[in-house]
Amino acid sequence: MGLIVQKFGGTSVSNAQRIMNVVKIVTDTYKKGNDVVVVVSAQGDTTDDLIAKANEINPNAHKRELDQLLSAGEQISVSLLAMGIEKLGFPVISLLGWQAGFNTNSIYTKARIKNIKTDRLQNEIEKHNIVVVAGFQGINKYEDITTLGRGGSDTSAVAIAAALNADKCQIYTDVEGVYTADPRKVKNAIKLKEITYDEMLEMATLGAQVLNNRSVEMAKKYGVELEVLSSLNPKPGTIVKEVIKLEKMLIRGVTKDTNVALISILNLQDTPGIAFKIFSKLSNKNINVDIILQSFGRDGTKDIVFTVEKENGPVAVELLEDLLDDCKVICNTDVAKVSVVGAGMESHPGTASKMFEALYETNINIQMISTSEINISVIIDSKDADRAVYAVHEKFIPNE
Amino acid sequence: MGLIVQKFGGTSVSNAQRIMNVVKIVTDTYKKGNDVVVVVSAQGDTTDDLIAKANEINPNAHKRELDQLLSAGEQISVSLLAMGIEKLGFPVISLLGWQAGFNTNSIYTKARIKNIKTDRLQNEIEKHNIVVVAGFQGINKYEDITTLGRGGSDTSAVAIAAALNADKCQIYTDVEGVYTADPRKVKNAIKLKEITYDEMLEMATLGAQVLNNRSVEMAKKYGVELEVLSSLNPKPGTIVKEVIKLEKMLIRGVTKDTNVALISILNLQDTPGIAFKIFSKLSNKNINVDIILQSFGRDGTKDIVFTVEKENGPVAVELLEDLLDDCKVICNTDVAKVSVVGAGMESHPGTASKMFEALYETNINIQMISTSEINISVIIDSKDADRAVYAVHEKFIPNE
Repeated sequence: MGLIVQKFGGTSVSNAQRIMNVVKIVTDTYKKGNDVVVVVSAQGDTTDDLIAKANEINPNAHKRELDQLLSAGEQISVSLLAMGIEKLGFPVISLLGWQAGFNTNSIYTKARIKNIKTDRLQNEIEKHNIVVVAGFQGINKYEDITTLGRGGSDTSAVAIAAALNADKCQIYTDVEGVYTADPRKVKNAIKLKEITYDEMLEMATLGAQVLNNRSVEMAKKYGVELEVLSSLNPKPGTIVKEVIKLEKMLIRGVTKDTNVALISILNLQDTPGIAFKIFSKLSNKNINVDIILQSFGRDGTKDIVFTVEKENGPVAVELLEDLLDDCKVICNTDVAKVSVVGAGMESHPGTASKMFEALYETNINIQMISTSEINISVIIDSKDADRAVYAVHEKFIPNE
Repeated sequence: MGLIVQKFGGTSVSNAQRIMNVVKIVTDTYKKGNDVVVVVSAQGDTTDDLIAKANEINPNAHKRELDQLLSAGEQISVSLLAMGIEKLGFPVISLLGWQAGFNTNSIYTKARIKNIKTDRLQNEIEKHNIVVVAGFQGINKYEDITTLGRGGSDTSAVAIAAALNADKCQIYTDVEGVYTADPRKVKNAIKLKEITYDEMLEMATLGAQVLNNRSVEMAKKYGVELEVLSSLNPKPGTIVKEVIKLEKMLIRGVTKDTNVALISILNLQDTPGIAFKIFSKLSNKNINVDIILQSFGRDGTKDIVFTVEKENGPVAVELLEDLLDDCKVICNTDVAKVSVVGAGMESHPGTASKMFEALYETNINIQMISTSEINISVIIDSKDADRAVYAVHEKFIPNE
């Protein structure tokens, strides 16, 4: 018994039947004597449909109006879910972002939560209501509606769990937990019982689309225990927390990210401060640079190679051609990043060589390498990505 | 130049093209130097679609959740309309009911406006924004969303016009104004230039579906000048106000109402207080009685005949059979009320006989007659209703 926050995504509430499935999970938890706060996203394609309506009228509309529009999506799903819970005879109330006290800054479509004024939430919980809260949305100091951006409902759920000091925050999704690799691609992928916040962050950053990064960062900051599990097949999923039991497994997973463009600047004159000029120009345009590699060439020139998100590739090339008259700037979008993640690898110097061995055995050429304390990433041709994930996974987590 | 409130119904904003048509009307008004507040309903069938979604899950859901759900409809239409206005380069902001300061009581789905806290509205007008307000919705003292019931957006518009002391409140609809009879049925029907609040109220009550009654009552109470006009063909419509110019026309219109049931109580023992018992029993069950006729029979008995809304007919019969053991109670739902309305008839005693003459010439039998200062109504067989409207209209407003 305790206070449990449960979050359900848009797929989990996409129609009446699925809503009643969520109702069952929520009320089963409540029947066991728990207080329950449920956070939901907009139904299925609602958000995309609303965006399409907006684009038909004005693709460049002020983002304040876009947030006013989009927040209608969760408004529909929370009230429908509340109606379903009421149907089974349980006390329930739905709250929109502003009713639940979500105060945010004013960066429309990508707002950050400043604080949650929990009076109403606590009041409803004390009345033993199941509280259904609209994820993804809040209100700014002007009393205007804001939205939290992609994956915002995960963040809403973790923020409520932190603000109410909940015992657990369960993120229900369409997979049964966090796997050592994408289970649709790698049939021997293993569901992890536990994973640390840091490992989960690396996994998310590296392309495993399970949890939104901001929500994991917030969970780590406030010590909220997360569980990732399936709404269609509710059994224990993967727990995300600070310290986990030691396991034999050296790595926690193998991930793939194809949203990568590789930019190469060739024959760059090696003048002082040139790297600063290049990367500050990119960051001024909000282009995030991931892996950077610098090699010394002949005759006082050098090559700089780095990766950005695929959509930023062409803009980056344009900016750099403006800045650097006499260099060749090349953009390659047919690349992918494949990574192994695991806190255990810190104390196992052989991890990198084991990964490279797997790629060598599979005849896959490595273009770039990047390492951190808990991950090793390589940039390879995108056509080789799935084969690479499979081979590396086999090497570390062999078929049993 | 002044402050103009414009209200557009769901049909007027049902798709992108129609929204841009509304944008044109609104911005043309603004370009003339006016401040403009626009009140909109939910797009086309949105409200019905949302109700269908709710019914699929829980047809008996708490009305608080229904209001939470339904208010998403106007949320979508106000933001889309604001985006359209912005597209043409005009300053604009959309406000939901609670943002626009609509405080209501807590009767969900049929809430009444208590007051409008106009700070935000006035602030946005001072900034020269076109303000797009969600009609039909407000907020109660618990910070829960309420809706105003059928025709609520008309009421929202008039309430804003009253609160801001606007110069005019224009109600855009799919007809070009108020006609002397339904123009789809009576080809000689004439569009009225002006009509008084009282006449408009009688017209609405008597079945002309142009303006919501509560909105006309409110306009009369606060002296808000209304104009009914077409959003698809914007030219001067019908002005509704307190005092209008005298015209030759004796009557303002002929209306038909088929939502009528005629209840007859026959052979009632004439004991003191029996009428009080009958009608208090009905009013306790929220059954409104319209026309009442009492006739004295033989042997100390009498007959009481009265009309109620069609859907209340069976309930009324049941209640009366419980109350009155030894009487016969009959319900006839194949009846209609046909009325002439006009403030001018007060000083013209011949109006009633002229109406009866028209019915006599058309061989239509009159079952009941009711008169007030500005209307004369008859109850006739519903099959004769359209013929009756045509004949009476011809008599008063002959084909030219």
